[in-house]
Amino acid sequence: MSLIVQKFGGTSVGDAGRIKTVAARVARERQAGSEVVVVVSAMADATDDLIGLARSVSREPRRRHPREMDMLLTTGERVAMALLAMAIRDCGVEAISLTGSQAAIITDTTHTGARIEEIRATRVREELARGAVVIVAGFQGVSRAREVTTLGRGGSDTTAVALAAALGAHRCDVFTDVDGVYSADPNRVPGAALLAEVDYQEMVELATSGAQVMHPRAVEIAARYGVPIRVLSSFRDDGHTGTLITRRRRMMEELALTGVASEPGHVRLTLRGFPSTMSALARVLNALSDARVSLDMLVIADRQDGRRQVQLTVKEDALPEALEVCEAVCTELGGDPAEVRTGLSRVALVGSGMHEAPGVYARAFTALTAAGVEVLSVSASSISIAFLVDTAHEDRTMRLLHETFGLGQVA
Amino acid sequence: MSLIVQKFGGTSVGDAGRIKTVAARVARERQAGSEVVVVVSAMADATDDLIGLARSVSREPRRRHPREMDMLLTTGERVAMALLAMAIRDCGVEAISLTGSQAAIITDTTHTGARIEEIRATRVREELARGAVVIVAGFQGVSRAREVTTLGRGGSDTTAVALAAALGAHRCDVFTDVDGVYSADPNRVPGAALLAEVDYQEMVELATSGAQVMHPRAVEIAARYGVPIRVLSSFRDDGHTGTLITRRRRMMEELALTGVASEPGHVRLTLRGFPSTMSALARVLNALSDARVSLDMLVIADRQDGRRQVQLTVKEDALPEALEVCEAVCTELGGDPAEVRTGLSRVALVGSGMHEAPGVYARAFTALTAAGVEVLSVSASSISIAFLVDTAHEDRTMRLLHETFGLGQVA
Repeated sequence: MSLIVQKFGGTSVGDAGRIKTVAARVARERQAGSEVVVVVSAMADATDDLIGLARSVSREPRRRHPREMDMLLTTGERVAMALLAMAIRDCGVEAISLTGSQAAIITDTTHTGARIEEIRATRVREELARGAVVIVAGFQGVSRAREVTTLGRGGSDTTAVALAAALGAHRCDVFTDVDGVYSADPNRVPGAALLAEVDYQEMVELATSGAQVMHPRAVEIAARYGVPIRVLSSFRDDGHTGTLITRRRRMMEELALTGVASEPGHVRLTLRGFPSTMSALARVLNALSDARVSLDMLVIADRQDGRRQVQLTVKEDALPEALEVCEAVCTELGGDPAEVRTGLSRVALVGSGMHEAPGVYARAFTALTAAGVEVLSVSASSISIAFLVDTAHEDRTMRLLHETFGLGQVA
Repeated sequence: MSLIVQKFGGTSVGDAGRIKTVAARVARERQAGSEVVVVVSAMADATDDLIGLARSVSREPRRRHPREMDMLLTTGERVAMALLAMAIRDCGVEAISLTGSQAAIITDTTHTGARIEEIRATRVREELARGAVVIVAGFQGVSRAREVTTLGRGGSDTTAVALAAALGAHRCDVFTDVDGVYSADPNRVPGAALLAEVDYQEMVELATSGAQVMHPRAVEIAARYGVPIRVLSSFRDDGHTGTLITRRRRMMEELALTGVASEPGHVRLTLRGFPSTMSALARVLNALSDARVSLDMLVIADRQDGRRQVQLTVKEDALPEALEVCEAVCTELGGDPAEVRTGLSRVALVGSGMHEAPGVYARAFTALTAAGVEVLSVSASSISIAFLVDTAHEDRTMRLLHETFGLGQVA
């Protein structure tokens, strides 16, 4: 018998009517003969309401009371899963809801951002064996000290994929409010096409570059364990198959561009007259790391006077810490004050075989130059090229790249 | 160091402001040098909101999905306890919240109405030893199969008293929205007095007779383990001491009347021409028990023709089942159809030494007769006499008994 993990996000279980729709879908899958494990998020807005409650009682509750914040937030998924279990049982299919602790999703002890260490799915298997649909709370786990933990960003996707891996599931279905993964955001890029299939690494790249549909953390687990993920809409009931995320077989040497994704909120810091030694560079990178600032792009340009120019890009919310670090290091090592440019977006073109295809750069720059888009910085990996542009040009950049590389036709 | 258990009900933690008030009170108690364990209910209305959600998803969820109902409802206390822990920590006092499972409140497996079997308070003691205030979710426990259970009616009071017993606490403070236990409901009986001290058994009798202030189940545990309970207001902050519920020392042979309490919603069933054999009586009592109908009063009056009249009183919500049983038995054994009188109230006069004082009946009936109150039935125990009257006479009966026995002056 095949085993399927189905994950439903907050909007899919947003009210009683939607919960009943989800229940009917799950019951149908079970009645068709599969074993089914369901992972569920908190009902839409429930988590925000709980965070609002915490803020009304305490300042900065997440930072100052992380353990209690986890205790509080995990109630959201419990409410949703108990309601879903009732609704599935009302469809005549046996169902049981399990907390992260009952499902033995063992995590480390990092409250509000725990990592899964192991899933001992004994109880889940027992309940499956007696024919029940097993509903597991997303986003939560339990530490070896029996403390309730939460997984942080992308938590419910991560729970679903990790459970699918632990159970050796046939497939993990991620139900969401869109039809699947598109070659670009269809609200912003005319002609964006639904992709029938995407490779794991391409999906990680799209997700880290701003595609909201799945969290990269979950996709990375899926890639590591080879769990096929199907992304599809919980609002459609017409047998559509959405997008399959899997290890994609390509023709040898094929250049296959998959899509574009973008994200605003980036800032560039330029340090001029910085010492051109490796130790100076290491000094600033370590200081940023100590301040927990994540860097995105890093550009180093040497000058003839033994000094260099260093460009860093960071997220806007990390700007105060980044600026403080850069100024302290420049004061210490010499160099001009950091120059800041805010309001930037990072647009990524994602696809396999990019490093083999120098023509990609040329075609991209030709199109963007003709359209008057200034590219402030570029960063490339084996499966992506990211362009840093002014946010005013973000949509135009996406559309130009999408059109230039004919992405609307690859689906 | 003395150990105090403090229990706060739903209205006491009804919103952010009240949670902060409770936090300040708990922090003061801790800073004054006591070890403090706090038991907390769900925020006012939270449980009703959750029940409403369940009903919007499923019919009769409590009866049909009791396990999932427990999973759902236990989130209410978890929200309240996490928020309270944050607020106490904000007062500079270390605090930690524990679920029924973490506090090892072991129950049987009866979902929605579990009984506590044992409390293994190891974790609670560890947290107390490191100086923390320990907040325990009221109303919930865990079965030996690691299932989440709820204790049913009076659950949070029961958790508090049971924890106090298990920890050998000095005292259990029950904070509520009234000043303590009164000789009668002060909203209905002018001159009702706050009682400084009440005996356990008197409190059980008052509580089962309609006094809302504490649940009889919790008082019974307190009596069994000798845990002193103090009932006081969470809205007063003037050092008032409320009511102490304890094993009260009386002068030998003293008749000490404590108070009156009342409850509407009773029904009387009269069976005429019933066979006057023990086996016939046992037949109807067993049939009622099988139908899970609780009897309150039972009056048997023999007739000269070998038949008898049997009067039973039950709660109004049990009337359909009771009537069905009575009619089936009457059809089987012979006898007239049951005669039903609804709209009755049970008014109880509570105090020790009642059985030694026949004058109590006489004084009560004299006063009620003079006032034109018809007593339909009477039932006495060692510490109470209950009068069944028409609900239209309920308040008048309370006032008359309160006045006749000078209850306003005993405090």
